[in-house]
Amino acid sequence: MAQNITQKLIKDHLVTGEMTPGEEIGLKIDQTLTQDATGTLVMLELEAMELERAKTEASAQYVDHNVIQEDSKNPDDHLFLHSATRKFGMYYSRPGNGVSHPVHMQRLAKPGKTLLGSDSHTCANGCMGMLAMGAGGIDVALAIAGEPFFVKMPKVWGIKLTGELPEWVSAKDMILELLRRYDVKGGVGRVIEYYGPGIETLSAMDRHVIANMGAELGATGTVFPSDKEIKRFLKEQGRGDDWMELVADKDATYDIHDELNLSEVEPMVAKPSSPGNVVTVKEIAGTPIYQSYVGSSANPGFRDFAIAAKIVNGKQIAQDLSFDINPTSRQMLTDLVKESHIASLLQSGARLHQAGCNGCIGMGQAPATGRNSLRTTPRNFPGRSGTREDSVFLCSPETAAASALTGEITDPRTLKMNYPKARDPKNPTIDVNLLDEPLPLQEAKKIKLEKGPNIASIPQMDQMPDEIELPILLKMGDNISTDEILAGGARVLPYRSNLPEISKFTFEIIDDTYYQRGKDSVEKGGHAIVGGFNYGQGSSREHAALAPRYLGLRVALVKDFARIHWQNLVNFGVLPLTFVNEEDYDLLSQGDVIEVKGLREKVKQGTDFSVNIKGKNQEIKVKAALSDRQIDIMLKGGIINWAKDRQKI
Amino acid sequence: MAQNITQKLIKDHLVTGEMTPGEEIGLKIDQTLTQDATGTLVMLELEAMELERAKTEASAQYVDHNVIQEDSKNPDDHLFLHSATRKFGMYYSRPGNGVSHPVHMQRLAKPGKTLLGSDSHTCANGCMGMLAMGAGGIDVALAIAGEPFFVKMPKVWGIKLTGELPEWVSAKDMILELLRRYDVKGGVGRVIEYYGPGIETLSAMDRHVIANMGAELGATGTVFPSDKEIKRFLKEQGRGDDWMELVADKDATYDIHDELNLSEVEPMVAKPSSPGNVVTVKEIAGTPIYQSYVGSSANPGFRDFAIAAKIVNGKQIAQDLSFDINPTSRQMLTDLVKESHIASLLQSGARLHQAGCNGCIGMGQAPATGRNSLRTTPRNFPGRSGTREDSVFLCSPETAAASALTGEITDPRTLKMNYPKARDPKNPTIDVNLLDEPLPLQEAKKIKLEKGPNIASIPQMDQMPDEIELPILLKMGDNISTDEILAGGARVLPYRSNLPEISKFTFEIIDDTYYQRGKDSVEKGGHAIVGGFNYGQGSSREHAALAPRYLGLRVALVKDFARIHWQNLVNFGVLPLTFVNEEDYDLLSQGDVIEVKGLREKVKQGTDFSVNIKGKNQEIKVKAALSDRQIDIMLKGGIINWAKDRQKI
Repeated sequence: MAQNITQKLIKDHLVTGEMTPGEEIGLKIDQTLTQDATGTLVMLELEAMELERAKTEASAQYVDHNVIQEDSKNPDDHLFLHSATRKFGMYYSRPGNGVSHPVHMQRLAKPGKTLLGSDSHTCANGCMGMLAMGAGGIDVALAIAGEPFFVKMPKVWGIKLTGELPEWVSAKDMILELLRRYDVKGGVGRVIEYYGPGIETLSAMDRHVIANMGAELGATGTVFPSDKEIKRFLKEQGRGDDWMELVADKDATYDIHDELNLSEVEPMVAKPSSPGNVVTVKEIAGTPIYQSYVGSSANPGFRDFAIAAKIVNGKQIAQDLSFDINPTSRQMLTDLVKESHIASLLQSGARLHQAGCNGCIGMGQAPATGRNSLRTTPRNFPGRSGTREDSVFLCSPETAAASALTGEITDPRTLKMNYPKARDPKNPTIDVNLLDEPLPLQEAKKIKLEKGPNIASIPQMDQMPDEIELPILLKMGDNISTDEILAGGARVLPYRSNLPEISKFTFEIIDDTYYQRGKDSVEKGGHAIVGGFNYGQGSSREHAALAPRYLGLRVALVKDFARIHWQNLVNFGVLPLTFVNEEDYDLLSQGDVIEVKGLREKVKQGTDFSVNIKGKNQEIKVKAALSDRQIDIMLKGGIINWAKDRQKI
Repeated sequence: MAQNITQKLIKDHLVTGEMTPGEEIGLKIDQTLTQDATGTLVMLELEAMELERAKTEASAQYVDHNVIQEDSKNPDDHLFLHSATRKFGMYYSRPGNGVSHPVHMQRLAKPGKTLLGSDSHTCANGCMGMLAMGAGGIDVALAIAGEPFFVKMPKVWGIKLTGELPEWVSAKDMILELLRRYDVKGGVGRVIEYYGPGIETLSAMDRHVIANMGAELGATGTVFPSDKEIKRFLKEQGRGDDWMELVADKDATYDIHDELNLSEVEPMVAKPSSPGNVVTVKEIAGTPIYQSYVGSSANPGFRDFAIAAKIVNGKQIAQDLSFDINPTSRQMLTDLVKESHIASLLQSGARLHQAGCNGCIGMGQAPATGRNSLRTTPRNFPGRSGTREDSVFLCSPETAAASALTGEITDPRTLKMNYPKARDPKNPTIDVNLLDEPLPLQEAKKIKLEKGPNIASIPQMDQMPDEIELPILLKMGDNISTDEILAGGARVLPYRSNLPEISKFTFEIIDDTYYQRGKDSVEKGGHAIVGGFNYGQGSSREHAALAPRYLGLRVALVKDFARIHWQNLVNFGVLPLTFVNEEDYDLLSQGDVIEVKGLREKVKQGTDFSVNIKGKNQEIKVKAALSDRQIDIMLKGGIINWAKDRQKI
């Protein structure tokens, strides 16, 4: 049967499940990508799993998020990550190398492979004919340890591209046009696969722009063919041998059919504060701006900076405007320097920043109060810039540069100049510093993890006991969010690599005595909590399961769970139970002690079972509803223990 | 009588006093320099003085310290500073332009002029044949308002330079050699004046390096002649007309005579954690380093970066080393880009940062815990890097680059290569963006100060009352520091431009009820505090006087004062009194009320006078010991009111 590219990639990597949209499938992962903000916990999880060596073909750790070093925490993390990559046989990209996605594309991406990354824009490498997906840290840790990645079989959304982008319009405008049409949930449960004659007119880096912001459509992934343009790109990067052709079969079909004529795309802009809030630039031209910002993984290409440089060359930017240039990688910055584009930008009045994610993730470059910021970044969620009640617009480099000159949002077609051409350099610099290669196994075995004072190993956790007698330390109502379980923010986040420290904030907002009572419970066998409907809604942060588990939480008994937190509880060995009869919630009080004997057998059987309220002569019916794999994980005390056992096979 | 350059500069600007070392003299100030960390308060002071227009020949506001924008506070400050320069007829240097001292040198410095700056390295511009001095913010505000600057007539320390620096040795090594000889107090009460044949061998920027670190010797200033090298420098900057010759008279003498043979200087390094802790590089070669750092106002020249680039060109830096390049100005970065030095640095593995002060003042680039950092910056005081218990070494660009290659402190003379030559570019870029020119008066009059939500005007303060009845809100012991009066640090400093907010931290460490009690006292005529010996020791921060004054403090009665805080109290209208009989301290308790009638006349007379303890039938003798000028300031309620009155003359 004729196959599209997505089907080929999935079939090639299918470990378990059926390729029926909506069904869970397990996929073999060839490559992984971690960045520093999520990577430290991934490395600590690999340590706790007692992993000897990464089982993927290539796993790379990038340092691009926390590259501002206001104290020793970030540089300590960098050294820890480097030691971990040396120990586990991974690639390491040092601070200053640049943003993970374009660097991965330049140095490691391979057509036909799967890539899993602990960063939501991992999908960008779909431009290389890969199935590239973002995931949580523990999923990526498991992939590094050789486990498959489980995901629902997506629908394939075929978008036929015809025509060619007009002058002053580029790839960013095209993906913004899709966001205008379909908004931020338009791609949920789908892989977007592009095909058709329009693809030839897009360079590899243009495709990166489009694949990157597939994340903003909510798509599982974006897939482009690996064609002669990808061959050219890899050859220029000195990696011609890594190329293989990957195109859809002639009669391939798609679950959803769509078409976009590139010739009809106009300069587009996403207004505050959603990437889906898209209008044409024309519609809001004249809006004053404080900042124009070029860079990030959403416009990472040499072309994206070169076109901006050519537009401002020999001119001056508007007064009081901050024209922020964030180079994507050291390699690209070197070429931009060599071809005089950086000089043009500087002489126009630009501020040149370190290569990295920077302002895109709120690390510097925050706009002033009440002022508009125009950016080529992928997202403009409220406050992401670092400024509360910010007002961030998303656009192409052409629009950003034109607006830098005028100080207001400007349709670049209205500039009095010819459209400058800017393509990738013919012989790009290849930066050998970009990635440290994995160490040979014998050398790697000698490496010790280098842990600064704020980095702590994940303590060993015991398996699920057969007999429990757990005091209820908290009884909560409905809609408890993970922010209430464990807050985010600047006070808490610096301890992301230090479980004993971060656990001090657990449930702090609800009851600041919980931490101490939890800690005291550990030696006596732990404790339980009781909750209402939608328990654990909100952010997917894994620490909201890991930290209470560390403080002795063994059972969470609630009316129902938010999906992701429920998975996280299982992963970290907290038994998630729901009431068979919701009214039994009223029978329980904080301070009650619940008892179960023969718990392991009961969980294994998967049927409803009874919990006794000690001293009250009352029983309540509960259920666990776990898959066979999850039962196995629960019995072992969590996925780290489970993966550790699998390492020994 | 034959004069040296320092004497000529002082004589030309002498407003009051005699040129006898140790005597107070008043000097006319031609130019001022403010940076953003200190400048916001200066501008608020000018606003409170109701200044119409800067009375100096040139006053420039630079944005170089707080250029990392993690939220809206820093960018709001930038916009405020720009609006203030437009209102007051000053120059403005936007963020990204670079470090104040070299930019001032490139664009505004003039031989024969005086320069006062609210930054301790203002002395760097002494390289241009100027008398350039650092001072507190209020002193600079007064200078902008046309007031003279008062300083003790310095001794002139003539240092005759002979010979020529050998290969691999540069200006930084020379000033480190002086610090080795004389340590960090060696220049106190002195202006260092260089003369002799060795000067011709030093470029204008080399002299900048040496003049800059005169601050580390504790000197009042450093003076170089304005000779043909300065003529060349100004001509290249398109400012040939600003040159005038300024050299010492043939038979000029110096208060202190000294000599240094440049030919004998070796590569030097200051060990942690004082710039005076100097040894030869040879002595500690082999010490492992985590970081090598090139940039800052202590090595700002094109040459300083170019030599580093030539040393690492075609080579790779050591693994796990962070090679941080901090360009000094946009103009210089442009030339470094054009002449391919930035490409060389990047390809060796360097991290290129935004032009500005950055890591030199702990804004990013902090080293990892327990690791050594080698820097071309001027200071290595403990913790200044942002990392607690840091270990920072100071050196030349040659030593920094050589050590970047090896990963350990390395004498550059041991590299197997010829010494590369690097001089200033022949036709340097002149960046018209570097400074916004002052607005014409008629336009300036229309400008409103642009205040973000965290910027608040200094409230108007009343004159000293004739009759006081003040409750003692705090009775403290000896050695109360300004840190106890008003803490520094990340919690407090963001409110430096917001007196109502920062005042909430006043005396918080001693008594957290003070703020509310102080605030409540304002309407009832204010309050007093009582202290022991050495009251107000430590940091010179003016907020430690301004904030209590804002909360109603009118009288500080103590056993004795630390000198700078005593001056600050007078400046902000708090009457500083000492006990005539120290044992009277024991007669006073917190809660007592002190009364004086006819206070204004008593202060005017300058003699001891009595204070009554209300309801206790007790009197104690006190004294004020103010100069005539200070009495005038006190009566008017502080220096802002005093300067405001002077604006009306």
